Amino acid sequence: MRAACYPPDGLKPLQIKKISTQHPTESAWDRLVRLVASVWPDDGQVNCIGVAAPGPTDPFQGVLFEAPNIPAWVNVPLASLLQERFGVPVTMGNDANLAALGEWKYGAGKGHHHLVYLTVSTGIGSGIIVDDRLLLGTRGLAAELGHITVLPDGPMCGCGQKGHLEALASGPSIARWVTEQITDGVPSSLSRLTVVTTKLVAEAAKSGDILALQAINRAGTFVGQALADVLHIFNPTIVIIGGGVSQSGELLMDPIRTAMQRHVMNTHYLDNLILTTAALGDDTGLLGALAMVRHQP
Amino acid sequence: MRAACYPPDGLKPLQIKKISTQHPTESAWDRLVRLVASVWPDDGQVNCIGVAAPGPTDPFQGVLFEAPNIPAWVNVPLASLLQERFGVPVTMGNDANLAALGEWKYGAGKGHHHLVYLTVSTGIGSGIIVDDRLLLGTRGLAAELGHITVLPDGPMCGCGQKGHLEALASGPSIARWVTEQITDGVPSSLSRLTVVTTKLVAEAAKSGDILALQAINRAGTFVGQALADVLHIFNPTIVIIGGGVSQSGELLMDPIRTAMQRHVMNTHYLDNLILTTAALGDDTGLLGALAMVRHQP
Repeated sequence: MRAACYPPDGLKPLQIKKISTQHPTESAWDRLVRLVASVWPDDGQVNCIGVAAPGPTDPFQGVLFEAPNIPAWVNVPLASLLQERFGVPVTMGNDANLAALGEWKYGAGKGHHHLVYLTVSTGIGSGIIVDDRLLLGTRGLAAELGHITVLPDGPMCGCGQKGHLEALASGPSIARWVTEQITDGVPSSLSRLTVVTTKLVAEAAKSGDILALQAINRAGTFVGQALADVLHIFNPTIVIIGGGVSQSGELLMDPIRTAMQRHVMNTHYLDNLILTTAALGDDTGLLGALAMVRHQP
Repeated sequence: MRAACYPPDGLKPLQIKKISTQHPTESAWDRLVRLVASVWPDDGQVNCIGVAAPGPTDPFQGVLFEAPNIPAWVNVPLASLLQERFGVPVTMGNDANLAALGEWKYGAGKGHHHLVYLTVSTGIGSGIIVDDRLLLGTRGLAAELGHITVLPDGPMCGCGQKGHLEALASGPSIARWVTEQITDGVPSSLSRLTVVTTKLVAEAAKSGDILALQAINRAGTFVGQALADVLHIFNPTIVIIGGGVSQSGELLMDPIRTAMQRHVMNTHYLDNLILTTAALGDDTGLLGALAMVRHQP
């Protein structure tokens, strides 16, 4: 988890700290409180706290429904807990939604009115700007593009359903597919490993390993298929790809572009469309939360 | 094509006329002009004309990109042509978008802030209300849910791509699938027909014909799969199904509901969700255009 203290203007934090979420004896809540306290400014002047929550979130009630990496957090009213603890207003949003907001205000999507942000990482999350507003839906659960069905009866998704995009194109899905292919006897420089990770697949792909290249290509193809749906649904001017897997650059972006073109119903959807990687780096969550407290109505 | 003249308030038309779009000697444009003139009020007082256009439309420029049933209409600036001809302001929208607007203002979706409308007919169109506003996208091409890919490499869609929802669940797709099954020797009360139509399939299903029931069920299952995507994307409070195929009622709605439940990532998306058929009848396009001119910003 990360925390930062920002001045009223500008994007340069006064204080910034990062600690691991997991700890053998300390609870995630205690770690969060200590982390926030550690970036509190010396003059004590804080207008509000913005939280980018790592899971499905009701931003209206400030409730985190679940956090895949913190099993103890189920239906946690995180906003009111923090507000009580620190005595300042707290607003909260889902991390992928806020990453979209950050890219829109400070990053690759500046000036666009219709924007789609997709993060391809351990999971696949997204955030969507419709007509200069963040798409939230009735309880803030909108914009879960990772759970579009791209292959009916395909592999099981972390959510328990089959064939969702996340089950075919997230980092772990890529590593799992490579492992299966190696088990089936497909040759690869990765076959000598006991555990195949997404990062090693990305490195092998960059070194020209055919299986690794196929794996990234396959993931990009599913992403592009889902994004064609998304173009038909939102008719945006920009699609931004973030997350660890996007660091494979053109190896991922090229099959995304090809599949998008292949599935789109007509070229009007591609007119003047920008497809690009995210501009904000590791602090995208912090900058997204900053964008929320500064710019949201 | 239909035209109506409405008073400043209320939903009861002062004049209403319907004529067939096709004519052996008269152009669609001439027929449209004559139709509009035929419902013009005796006192000549008209504030504006609202047009529900039968195809992909740029509502900002008032341009109809194409009309499947009127091949001569490609990139037609219909709004300015009508404005010039009749001397009053003209606003225009895609018919499915306006049907959504009509259902939201006057029909099954009154009072909802997040609404999805899907019409299952000769094609599959849709309209979506996000946060009390019609989703249009940058050129008005958003909300084309009929072109979500539900079966990669599935049958060819009218748009030229494969496996889109429209290619699997529209009226003609249902009739085509039944015809294929009969050709393959599957028994059915419909097998004695030379041409199988959607309407005959619907009637046979109501009479208990197993193949016809399977056909409606199969279409509903694909609609439900796509709608699960749509719930993840919009987190709406109501989904309204319109169009001719929806007249099969529970025979269609039941598999839609089942498939939606099967593909949705968690039950939060189904909490308090209403799934219902459209309330406005054949005049949905007229009432949608009326809603546009009365309520759009």
